[in-house]
Amino acid sequence: MTPDERRSLILDGVSEVVGAEHLESCLATGRGIGGGPIKAYIGFEPSGHAHLGWLVLSQRMRRFLDADLHLTVLLADWHGWINDKLGGSLESIEVASVHMESVFRCLLDDPPEGDGPGQVSFVRASHLVDDGDYWAGVIRHMKNVSLARIRKTFSIMGRDEDDADGDTSKFLYPAMQSQDIHTMNIDVALGGMDQRKAHMYMRDMADRLGLPKATCVHTPIIPGLRSATGRMDASITGGSGVQVAGADEKMSKSDPKGAILLHHGAGRIRKLMRGAHLDPASPDSPIHEILEHIVFVRSTSMPVDRSEEHGGPLTIESVDQARRLLADGDLHPLDYKESVAARIADLLAPLRSRIESEPATFQALDRLVQKHSA
Amino acid sequence: MTPDERRSLILDGVSEVVGAEHLESCLATGRGIGGGPIKAYIGFEPSGHAHLGWLVLSQRMRRFLDADLHLTVLLADWHGWINDKLGGSLESIEVASVHMESVFRCLLDDPPEGDGPGQVSFVRASHLVDDGDYWAGVIRHMKNVSLARIRKTFSIMGRDEDDADGDTSKFLYPAMQSQDIHTMNIDVALGGMDQRKAHMYMRDMADRLGLPKATCVHTPIIPGLRSATGRMDASITGGSGVQVAGADEKMSKSDPKGAILLHHGAGRIRKLMRGAHLDPASPDSPIHEILEHIVFVRSTSMPVDRSEEHGGPLTIESVDQARRLLADGDLHPLDYKESVAARIADLLAPLRSRIESEPATFQALDRLVQKHSA
Repeated sequence: MTPDERRSLILDGVSEVVGAEHLESCLATGRGIGGGPIKAYIGFEPSGHAHLGWLVLSQRMRRFLDADLHLTVLLADWHGWINDKLGGSLESIEVASVHMESVFRCLLDDPPEGDGPGQVSFVRASHLVDDGDYWAGVIRHMKNVSLARIRKTFSIMGRDEDDADGDTSKFLYPAMQSQDIHTMNIDVALGGMDQRKAHMYMRDMADRLGLPKATCVHTPIIPGLRSATGRMDASITGGSGVQVAGADEKMSKSDPKGAILLHHGAGRIRKLMRGAHLDPASPDSPIHEILEHIVFVRSTSMPVDRSEEHGGPLTIESVDQARRLLADGDLHPLDYKESVAARIADLLAPLRSRIESEPATFQALDRLVQKHSA
Repeated sequence: MTPDERRSLILDGVSEVVGAEHLESCLATGRGIGGGPIKAYIGFEPSGHAHLGWLVLSQRMRRFLDADLHLTVLLADWHGWINDKLGGSLESIEVASVHMESVFRCLLDDPPEGDGPGQVSFVRASHLVDDGDYWAGVIRHMKNVSLARIRKTFSIMGRDEDDADGDTSKFLYPAMQSQDIHTMNIDVALGGMDQRKAHMYMRDMADRLGLPKATCVHTPIIPGLRSATGRMDASITGGSGVQVAGADEKMSKSDPKGAILLHHGAGRIRKLMRGAHLDPASPDSPIHEILEHIVFVRSTSMPVDRSEEHGGPLTIESVDQARRLLADGDLHPLDYKESVAARIADLLAPLRSRIESEPATFQALDRLVQKHSA
């Protein structure tokens, strides 16, 4: 694979790349900061069920592996603990971690695990933090940052600036997120556009501390199904799968009617999609985003299976075509929604089978999620 | 040794004991929280030269060992680093740690080292922090405390409440000091009266977290030689050998004319003592404190070697006697000062020999201290 081919796999179609020069120098030498393979990472708080947004991320993760990057999936259990996920219980978060690992193995098509190029590692934050050097890094970081500056990052956690005043552990979170990247010698940090703020903060801190700066790659994010302002570029907020005040665009599992969860079956997906926002006169709809960033990443066209009386079968080949057909009244919103729903259900069918083959893992998590959403 | 004998060694002559019930239950069973020997600890930031205040602490530490407690001397290197000691360099702080260890071995009369009763362990904080469980404790602590509450402890570090706003690592310090005690299963925490605030905070946090609460034993503290308000009960401030705004009573190495350092020779000690505050009409003087809390802890009387023309030889057997003689004009302040100085020089002679036998250790520290006080 040439550097150009690798670059295309890594970057084509992302929403944003920050600090591409580091990736360029890695591609030129074929090596990462640590001297081995070029290392990418993405971090998730294991906080509950997976939603459709993970599909966008896993598509990019798969491309990273195809580009012979090493990929670490950080199961950010301590971050979730600090951020009060699943009742702030590390035991419960571990249940979510086990499920999350399984989901990503399936979404990534069971890639080889290991430390080499094209291989994936699942790393618990609780493993990283069991080392004084990690905390020395956190302290060096905190010695160089003001309380006010840390507060400004709190949307990373989906929190307001004064949310940590009664729980000071939250002031550790941004330093930990930066230190994760440094400890693991990461060359490419991946996240949705909602992670932009965390990554820019990490780069700012790396400058202050004279540390290498990972290239940051941001994917589009999928809006909630009921969002009217569904363009992903309006959604540079939030983070870690958490809904943020004022960021109601992003799909979030905290809105049951707004989120397709990855274990949903065809019937549930269809029902949720039917309730999604779609105004034929407007170019903005979460359905368009799903079509563009999920369906059309896998296929070049989408069939609309329509009866003759409603216009007969149709093939959609671009999102703009769908917008035009809707605006002109040549495509009924319901037909469009049902077609996208059917395609998503197809894409999720292998994951659903995997989840059904491991019922204990899923059920344990499901009980916890029910308990903490009650 | 009976529990009563042990109690007397541990507590007789201290300024304060907080939470004696835990010590009582240990003495009744002969075991500490950890199931082994009753464990005591004292923490020091290895930040420079030792001063006379350490002599008061080491006398109590020696009694703890005589009472068959296990004693840990925590060389709080990370705390010193966070608190910007010796330029905030862990390497420099390690130089101070090596010297500090040697000083305490000598002051404690070379006790056996080990984990048993009557034995001492020197532990670096950098060893404690190399464990995720330690940090889990710090995070649990921080989850239960407000920013405002942490600020109120900052005098522990010798800092003002807003000193950490530009260096957020300092917000970790109080949680770490509490966690040290918990991690090591400490039954008795020892410190000068200046550590009272840190210990009360630790007890408050232990209550919130449902953790066992170590008994806290506080010794008198020796005021600076130029302090006019030299009663130790006026000195419930400061900490960690650091001078605190408004706490000018406590002896501090940051005032070269006010502090006797443990490596000083007889000539230097005499000169410093001659400059000490002493008003014959007042009951308060740092000289009285040194006589009471150091000289009379080791001997029951102090000779005053006076020429016949100044009144001839004299033996002082109590601090009140000295106060009366001075007030009545029967003892010249200079004769009194010189007698105390000579006694202190005698007490420090073995340590001075030890230091001279290890010149490299002392000189390495001395160079760092010169550099950072310049």
